[in-house]
Amino acid sequence: MSDALRTRLYDALNALVIVDPHTHINPHAPASTTLVDILGYHYYTELAHSAGMPREQIEEPGLDPREKTRRLIENLGPIDNTIQYSWFVELCREFFGFTDERVTPKNWEKLYDAALAKMKSPDWAGQVLKQSKLEGVFLTNDFDDPLEGFDTQVYVPCLRTDDLVFHLGKPEVRARLEKAAKASVGNTDQLRQAIGGLFKHFKGRGARACAISLPPDFAPARVDKGAAEAALQAVWKDGVNADAGKRRDLSNFVFWTLAEYCVEFKLPLDLMIGVNRAVYPGGVFQGMDLYDSRVSLIQYRELFNAFPQVTFPISVLASVTNQELASYSWIFPNVVTNGHWWYSNTPTFIEHDLAARLEAVPRTKQIGYYSDMYKLEFALPKFAMWKRILAKVLAERYVVDRGWSEERAVAFGTEILRDNTRRIFYRD
Amino acid sequence: MSDALRTRLYDALNALVIVDPHTHINPHAPASTTLVDILGYHYYTELAHSAGMPREQIEEPGLDPREKTRRLIENLGPIDNTIQYSWFVELCREFFGFTDERVTPKNWEKLYDAALAKMKSPDWAGQVLKQSKLEGVFLTNDFDDPLEGFDTQVYVPCLRTDDLVFHLGKPEVRARLEKAAKASVGNTDQLRQAIGGLFKHFKGRGARACAISLPPDFAPARVDKGAAEAALQAVWKDGVNADAGKRRDLSNFVFWTLAEYCVEFKLPLDLMIGVNRAVYPGGVFQGMDLYDSRVSLIQYRELFNAFPQVTFPISVLASVTNQELASYSWIFPNVVTNGHWWYSNTPTFIEHDLAARLEAVPRTKQIGYYSDMYKLEFALPKFAMWKRILAKVLAERYVVDRGWSEERAVAFGTEILRDNTRRIFYRD
Amino acid sequence: MSDALRTRLYDALNALVIVDPHTHINPHAPASTTLVDILGYHYYTELAHSAGMPREQIEEPGLDPREKTRRLIENLGPIDNTIQYSWFVELCREFFGFTDERVTPKNWEKLYDAALAKMKSPDWAGQVLKQSKLEGVFLTNDFDDPLEGFDTQVYVPCLRTDDLVFHLGKPEVRARLEKAAKASVGNTDQLRQAIGGLFKHFKGRGARACAISLPPDFAPARVDKGAAEAALQAVWKDGVNADAGKRRDLSNFVFWTLAEYCVEFKLPLDLMIGVNRAVYPGGVFQGMDLYDSRVSLIQYRELFNAFPQVTFPISVLASVTNQELASYSWIFPNVVTNGHWWYSNTPTFIEHDLAARLEAVPRTKQIGYYSDMYKLEFALPKFAMWKRILAKVLAERYVVDRGWSEERAVAFGTEILRDNTRRIFYRD
Repeated sequence: MSDALRTRLYDALNALVIVDPHTHINPHAPASTTLVDILGYHYYTELAHSAGMPREQIEEPGLDPREKTRRLIENLGPIDNTIQYSWFVELCREFFGFTDERVTPKNWEKLYDAALAKMKSPDWAGQVLKQSKLEGVFLTNDFDDPLEGFDTQVYVPCLRTDDLVFHLGKPEVRARLEKAAKASVGNTDQLRQAIGGLFKHFKGRGARACAISLPPDFAPARVDKGAAEAALQAVWKDGVNADAGKRRDLSNFVFWTLAEYCVEFKLPLDLMIGVNRAVYPGGVFQGMDLYDSRVSLIQYRELFNAFPQVTFPISVLASVTNQELASYSWIFPNVVTNGHWWYSNTPTFIEHDLAARLEAVPRTKQIGYYSDMYKLEFALPKFAMWKRILAKVLAERYVVDRGWSEERAVAFGTEILRDNTRRIFYRD
Repeated sequence: MSDALRTRLYDALNALVIVDPHTHINPHAPASTTLVDILGYHYYTELAHSAGMPREQIEEPGLDPREKTRRLIENLGPIDNTIQYSWFVELCREFFGFTDERVTPKNWEKLYDAALAKMKSPDWAGQVLKQSKLEGVFLTNDFDDPLEGFDTQVYVPCLRTDDLVFHLGKPEVRARLEKAAKASVGNTDQLRQAIGGLFKHFKGRGARACAISLPPDFAPARVDKGAAEAALQAVWKDGVNADAGKRRDLSNFVFWTLAEYCVEFKLPLDLMIGVNRAVYPGGVFQGMDLYDSRVSLIQYRELFNAFPQVTFPISVLASVTNQELASYSWIFPNVVTNGHWWYSNTPTFIEHDLAARLEAVPRTKQIGYYSDMYKLEFALPKFAMWKRILAKVLAERYVVDRGWSEERAVAFGTEILRDNTRRIFYRD
Repeated sequence: MSDALRTRLYDALNALVIVDPHTHINPHAPASTTLVDILGYHYYTELAHSAGMPREQIEEPGLDPREKTRRLIENLGPIDNTIQYSWFVELCREFFGFTDERVTPKNWEKLYDAALAKMKSPDWAGQVLKQSKLEGVFLTNDFDDPLEGFDTQVYVPCLRTDDLVFHLGKPEVRARLEKAAKASVGNTDQLRQAIGGLFKHFKGRGARACAISLPPDFAPARVDKGAAEAALQAVWKDGVNADAGKRRDLSNFVFWTLAEYCVEFKLPLDLMIGVNRAVYPGGVFQGMDLYDSRVSLIQYRELFNAFPQVTFPISVLASVTNQELASYSWIFPNVVTNGHWWYSNTPTFIEHDLAARLEAVPRTKQIGYYSDMYKLEFALPKFAMWKRILAKVLAERYVVDRGWSEERAVAFGTEILRDNTRRIFYRD
C-alpha cells in the first residue's frame, strides 16, 4: 500500500513541467555530443579515480572520446553501487534505449553508438528538455559573459561572482573586469561602478539571480570606505600575495556591494555555503574540492539583517548544517532553502534534510531541487531521484503520519518542486 | 500491521496521566481567554512573519483580539505545512469542536466564537488539564517571583536564572535581586547570600528545579574568590559595558554558585544549551533567537565532574548535539536527557534524536518530553505529536527490529514519558 | 514482505565466514572464563555506573567473579533498554542456552553455571570462533608486544601506536621503547630507527595494520628535522611537563614517521578520530572517555596528500563526522571508511551512517564493521546487530527504492562485510 501510494504521488509530481533553478549548462552546447560528455562529469571521473583509476588515464591530452569512454567504463565497476552511477544508467535507459542493469566492457559499444545517433539528431537539446519536462534552466555565467546567441527564456542567465569576490587579486580577473566594464578600475568607486555595469548587463539580458559559492570560514561583514580603499590598493599592488586581512576586506567589500546591487536590481542572491577548494590537488578536474563541516549560518547574521529586501536562496554543503538552514529560513523572511548541494545530494541526506525542511519552513520558502548539471541529460535522472524521495517523505510523513489527503500532499510537493522557483526568481 | 501496532502503542501511552516538566505557563492565567492567546504563540507570529507578514501588522499596539486573529489567520496559509500549524488545528479539534482541515478566512469566525465560549466556562484551565491528562506543569519563574496565589502542587515552581547569570549588569536586575533579598548586594558574599535566599524561598514554595538557557559559547568554570570579587565590582561599576572578561567571570561565579545551592537544596539544574539571543532583532516578539550549532558538551566537563550530587537534565538546541547528549548521559551519572527543545522539536529531529537516546542511555535517565508551552492548550497537541513518534520508534525499532513484546515497549515508553519526571524531580 | 526480504538478505549475509578487522582480543586469553569477563566489558560497568551503581562496588579489589556478576546483574535493570544489553542477552542465548528475555537476580545463577561449564570446555575459543563464523581477528598490540605464542593467522597482529605518538614523555614509555629497540633513543635519528625496528618486527610476525586513536584537536603536520630534534630533547628533559608546542611537534614527528614506515612496510594506517580521554575521571575503568564532536577531516588534508601510497581506514567517533568521512573517501583514493566506532556503534547512527556511505563511496572502499571486542563472545551479537541493519538498508534502499535484485544486494553486502577486509589489509 505504501509503495503504491508513493508511486501515485511520484506520478503526479513527475507530470509537472518545471524550471531548473541552478545548472552549469553551456547554452551554446547544452546537450552531449558523445557518451564521454556524460561520463566526463566529475562524479564519474572522481569516483573512478577514488576507486583506483589513475588521473593520467582519465585526463590524457587528446584522448579520443570513444577510447576515453572505454577506459572509464572499464573502471566503473567499483562504483556501480553509487547513486551517481544510477543516474548514468537511468539516463541511458530513458534517452538511449539501454535495457541492461549495468554498463560493462561487454555492452558499452552498442550503447555508445545508440547515444551517438541520438545526439546527432536535430535539436537534441530540445528533445532532452522536452522529455525531461524542463521549460527553463538557470545558467552559471562568468561575470564577463556576453550572454549572446541563445534564448534567455530557456537558458536563464545568472551572474556568478566567485571570481569577483575571491579572485580579484589575479591579474587576469582584473583584466576581464576592466574589459567587461570598458573602464579602468583603479579605486573602489570605479570598482563599484564596474560591478553595477555587470548587473545592468545581466538584468538586461534576463538574469534571474546572482550566485556565489563560499568557503566555510567566510563571514560577510560591512567594510567602511577607507578600509575598502586600502584593501583594493593593497590587492592591486600585491595581487594574490597581498596581506590576508586586506584580501579579506576586499572580498567583504565586493560581496557587500553585490548585495547592494541585488537590492537595486531586484535579484535573489544564491549563497552556496561551505566548500573548500583544492583540498586534494592531485585529484581529477573538478574532483579536488571538499569541506570543513564546522560552519554556521550565524556567520551571515549581519548580512541577513542588513538586506531585508534581498532574498537569499541558500544551499549548504553538509547535512549537519541543514537544521540551521531550516531554522534560519523559519525565522528570517529573506532566507529560503535551496536544493541539496553536491555532497548532500545523495538519498540518505536528501531524505533527512528534506523531511526536516518540509515540516518547519513555510511552504512558500522552499526551493526543492536543482540539478547542478553540466549537460542537459542529467536533469532527468537527478530530478527523478529527488522526486522519488519527495514522494516517499510525503507518503510516510504526511499521508500516513499526519493523515493528509493525497491531493494536499501533491499540492505541497508541486509548490516545492515547481511553483516556488517561479515565485522567488520571477517576481518582476 | 505496523500501523495498527503503532496505534496500539500510542493508545496505551496516551492513557497516562503525567507531569509536564517544563513550561512557561503563568499560573495566574494558565489557559487562553481568546483564540489570539493561541495564535499569539511565537511559532505562529514568527512563521507568519517569515512568510511575509510585516511585524507591524502583528504587533500593532492596542489591537483587538478578534482583529489580530483575523489578520493572523489570513497569513497562515503559507505555513499550513508546518508541524506547528498542525498543533493549532489539533487543539482546535480537540478542545473547540473544529472539524475542518485548515483554519481559513472563511471558517475562522465560527471557531473563534466556539473557542471564546469554551474559554469563558468556569475552570477552563482545569478542564484543559484534565482533557490533556496533566496532573502538574512545571513553571519558569523569575528569580523574584513571590510564588503566591496558586496551587504549587499543580503549578510547580522552577527557579529560572538567566537574569542572574547573564544580566546582573543591568541596574533593574540588581534592583530586583536586592529587593527580593531584602538586602543590598555589594560584594560576592552578599551576592551568594542573596542567591541562597532565593533558593530557600523557592524550595519552601515547592520548587522542583533550577533552570537556565545558555549561549553556545558558554563554558562554565570555577572562578576564585578574588577574581569573582573583582568581576562583581567591575560590573557594579560599568554595568553591561564592563569588560567582557569581567562579565564572563561574574557569569561563571553566579553559575557556579547556583550549582552549589542545587547541592544544598537538592534541586536538579536544567541546562538548555545553545541559544543565541536576538540574532534577528527585526523579528517579532520571541521570534529573534537562533543559534550556532558548533557547541559541545565538553564545555561542561568541569561542571559535571565538580557536582556529582547535582542532576543535570539537559536540552540541546540542535540535533547535531544530540549524540553528544546521549553519550554524556551514558557516561556521567549526573547527566540526563531532557526533551526536544525548540528548533529540534519537530518530528524528523525528534525521531532521530529519540531513537538514538532510547538505545544508548539507561532508561531511568531519559526525560522524554516537555511542552515548553505558554498556554495550557498546547500540551495536548505537542505531547500527542511526541507520543506518536515514540510509538513509531518503539514499534519499528523495538517490537519489529528487536522482537520486544508490546507490553515491554509500553513499559519502556511509560518510564520515559511519565515515571522519570517523578524519579528525577521528586526525590525528596 | 519487507520483513521477509530483510530476513532473506540477513540469512545470506550471516552465512559468510569473515575476518574481524579490529578487536582488543588478548590472543593468550581470547575467550571468557566466567560470566564476569563478559559483564566486565566497559559497556556494562559504565552504563550500570551511569544508572547509579557506585564505582567502588564494581571495582572492589579482589572481588570474586560470581559476586561481581551478582552485583552487576542486580544493577542492569535500568539499562535493559540499551543495545549493549541486547548483545549480552543474545550471546547468552547463542552460546549458553539462555532462553529468558532478561537476566535477572532470579535467573542469573543458572546462566552463570551454564556459561562456566561451556567456558571450561576444551578449545572454547575455537568453538566461539567457529560459531561466530570468524576465521581471523585483528589484535591491538602494544608496540613492544613480543607477538609470540599464538597463531598469527587467526590472531592477526596490529601495531597500536597511541603510546608512541602521545605518551613518549612518560619515562616508562621511553623505557619500553628502548627495551624493544634494544638501543638507547637519544635523538630523532635513533627514534626513527627504533620505530623502524618495531615495524620490521610486526611485519615479520604477520601484522596487517598500524593503528592509532586520535583526539579531536589533532591535526597532523610534517615537522622539519630541526624542530623535531628540539621537540625530542625538550620532551626527554621535561617529560609530560614539556612545553605544549614541543610535545605537539614531537607527536607530529612520530605520527609522520609512522606514515612513512607504512609506505615502506605496505601497511594500512587505521585512524580512529575524535576521542577525548578521561573526560570523566571519576568513571569506571575504560568508562571515562568522551568527545568533542567539533572535528573535521580537513585537519588531515596534508597527511592524505602526502601519503598517496598509504591506505587510511578511518573510523569517526561521532555521526556528525560521517558525511565528511563518506565525502573524503569518495574523493581521496587512499581514504576508506571503517566500521562504526564506539559511541556511533548503536543502531540509529549505524543505519544513518551506513546508508550514507553505501550510496556515495565506491563499494571497494568500505570496510563494513569490526567488533572492537575484548572477548571473543562479543563478535557474534555485535556483527549480528550490524548485519541486521545492513540487511534493512539493502532491503529498503536498494531492493525497494532502487529496484535491485536480491542477488545484487547480497553481493554488495558481501563485499562490505567480508571481501574488502581481505582486499585492503591483505594486499601482499
